[in-house]
Amino acid sequence: MPTRITAFEAFDIRFPTSQHLDGSDAMNPDPDYSAAYVVLRTDSADRCGYGMTFTIGRGNEICVAAIRSLATLLIGQTVESLMTEPVTLYRKLTGDSQLRWVGPEKGVIHLAAAAVINAVWDLWARIQHKPVWQVICDMSPAQFVASVDFRYLTDALTPNQALELLDRHTATRAQRIEELRGIGYPSYTTSAGWLGYSDEALKQKCTDLQARGWSHFKIKVGRDLDDDRRRCSVLRREMGEEAHMMIDANQVWDVPQAIEWIRELAPFRPWFVEEPTSPDDILGHRAIAEAVRPIRIATGEMCHNRIMFKQFMQCGALQVCQLDCCRLGGVNEVMAVLLLAAKFGIPVCPHAGGVGLCEYVQHASIVDYVCVSASMEDRVAEYSDHLHEHVYDPVVMQHGRYMPPMKAGYSVQFTEAAMQQFAR
Amino acid sequence: MPTRITAFEAFDIRFPTSQHLDGSDAMNPDPDYSAAYVVLRTDSADRCGYGMTFTIGRGNEICVAAIRSLATLLIGQTVESLMTEPVTLYRKLTGDSQLRWVGPEKGVIHLAAAAVINAVWDLWARIQHKPVWQVICDMSPAQFVASVDFRYLTDALTPNQALELLDRHTATRAQRIEELRGIGYPSYTTSAGWLGYSDEALKQKCTDLQARGWSHFKIKVGRDLDDDRRRCSVLRREMGEEAHMMIDANQVWDVPQAIEWIRELAPFRPWFVEEPTSPDDILGHRAIAEAVRPIRIATGEMCHNRIMFKQFMQCGALQVCQLDCCRLGGVNEVMAVLLLAAKFGIPVCPHAGGVGLCEYVQHASIVDYVCVSASMEDRVAEYSDHLHEHVYDPVVMQHGRYMPPMKAGYSVQFTEAAMQQFAR
Repeated sequence: MPTRITAFEAFDIRFPTSQHLDGSDAMNPDPDYSAAYVVLRTDSADRCGYGMTFTIGRGNEICVAAIRSLATLLIGQTVESLMTEPVTLYRKLTGDSQLRWVGPEKGVIHLAAAAVINAVWDLWARIQHKPVWQVICDMSPAQFVASVDFRYLTDALTPNQALELLDRHTATRAQRIEELRGIGYPSYTTSAGWLGYSDEALKQKCTDLQARGWSHFKIKVGRDLDDDRRRCSVLRREMGEEAHMMIDANQVWDVPQAIEWIRELAPFRPWFVEEPTSPDDILGHRAIAEAVRPIRIATGEMCHNRIMFKQFMQCGALQVCQLDCCRLGGVNEVMAVLLLAAKFGIPVCPHAGGVGLCEYVQHASIVDYVCVSASMEDRVAEYSDHLHEHVYDPVVMQHGRYMPPMKAGYSVQFTEAAMQQFAR
Repeated sequence: MPTRITAFEAFDIRFPTSQHLDGSDAMNPDPDYSAAYVVLRTDSADRCGYGMTFTIGRGNEICVAAIRSLATLLIGQTVESLMTEPVTLYRKLTGDSQLRWVGPEKGVIHLAAAAVINAVWDLWARIQHKPVWQVICDMSPAQFVASVDFRYLTDALTPNQALELLDRHTATRAQRIEELRGIGYPSYTTSAGWLGYSDEALKQKCTDLQARGWSHFKIKVGRDLDDDRRRCSVLRREMGEEAHMMIDANQVWDVPQAIEWIRELAPFRPWFVEEPTSPDDILGHRAIAEAVRPIRIATGEMCHNRIMFKQFMQCGALQVCQLDCCRLGGVNEVMAVLLLAAKFGIPVCPHAGGVGLCEYVQHASIVDYVCVSASMEDRVAEYSDHLHEHVYDPVVMQHGRYMPPMKAGYSVQFTEAAMQQFAR
């Protein structure tokens, strides 16, 4: 029996994180981590799909409005009709001839599309009693390719080339899944490095996190150069020369300023520099990357679609791909960007933190490892250690690694308690 | 006495244009031209500001929601405090640390920012009893530069370079204003070329428009190559070899396909080819431009901010800049892109059609001619001949040219009758 989507509810969920300066950086001084959340109801009373997009507070209400406009398109559809060729789902939610005007494939409408698309993948995975990563890992290369919208990609990646990429690693998928079940997927943490923390808090966080198994640490920079030097030096001293330190400017610099500032921080040997300038500035990132080489440039949490990532990769503007499972148009477009990254030989280190994002990105990194790149080299998924208590299937970390989630779905169903306390 | 913004109202206005296939093209088969409209109230009962952003139907409600979130930021502000340095207005509406997450500077939140920013310019111009174009033409170069957010532009254009650009033409502004009052600003028209029209309708429209003074005509292409050849040939035959024919693909091609298709239509000598592929694909446009040279590539109606235009211009990806007064973040960002275009020597032919856009773009083109480029060479502002009856200050066309609007404000206040019939 097919499962038909019959109704939906959209919720504006906000956590008052700004009260504790969790998540503070040079661009975002006081975020309130929030979720624009959708629950898809079906003709089977015990079967729902849950999806969300992440925001940092004000504006969440606009994403909720956009979810309402988009989810309406699914009423009456069966999950099976959308997922036989999963690109059908993506096109339905990004290709409406009137709605695409207010994107296309960017900003509020695309964030909302992610929530709705992810909710359908969640529902589809629940029907199969599998986590989303496993649904994808059980797909043939042809099914994987049938999930991706290749429109505007074919000058860089054709469906046939994608098939070839996937064919290389199909036979060995099972052993990588086995490995992940044993030791998990590596992560790095930003929990130490928010600008709002004091030196003492920074040291304490570092010691604590290192004891729990992490060796990659990211700190926020870009507000004051002397302050950045001091905090980089605290982190280097606490963590040792072997630790991987990354720095994140959250888009505060213009191109010439980015080049100067990064050169000043180069002695601290950052493993990468994240978001040195506007997320839209492909050519700016390229200029920065060329000027500060061999320091690598990372970006992607605000890279809004596969067409932007294509160009960043085509011209050498990024060396680390930090795709975001809510900024991109849901699972389908994440799969597209994993393929692009493999084509260009660029490691994917997905963006997380916030709320729900860690729960999402573990699926993306597992799919990357099992199906697409088959490599962990230079790859770590971001992790932050807060707000996980609000979902029914929170991430499980062991020695600084994500352990594969085993429950059915896409891991972001909020608890009844969280809904009671934080949903509007 | 300063004028304080005390309240606002937002409206969802929709015109059922899809019933007549006005505006049909290969990407947008059935648009319902719409406006997300804001009225700013002040402490002076007879003084309001009117602004809008343009959409093609569904999704307009999301822009209205975003207008509500943004206009709230203005309550209690005085117009004078926002406009002493007009970039203050732009930063206030695009720089909110939480709201920028759902952009930044793109999609719904930026379309809504345009409506609100334009409403403040409208209000400010009404206070001065001038049309917006004249407010800007009465600014010193320093004031003009103080209207622009140079963040992320300085690798291509610094404030000092912008001052130099403006200084060149300041002394001769008055004579160009005089000229415009006499003969107006040249336009081209899309009214002939919608895909939904029959050959007979196309011929009839052409003859009619040529008689009324137009010599530039644009038609829509990209759905079917044989059909495009036939319609290009009808237009060439009707208009003669001297007429300027432009073709518009509305983003339907991938890069390799665009190159092939344009080569097939090259014998009809298009004056430019508009939107050959994704509006986000800077490098794709460059590849197309290089392959089909000397045919020029035009784009911009969906180019969402100054950072994208900067790159299109830096790398030779566009030869005609079709900025949109609603897609960009209002008057301030239009001024930024006019400066960029002057820096790179690229003609600006603003995007119009729709509803309200013609009313807006005349101001942009006048400012370009009077203050920035001081040239009409290769420059025409788009024009479509419908829906003008719904505003109090409709465009005045003479012999295919825009005559400068003389009423105070930014020309998009909707009539009471239009509000009654079409506003929700």
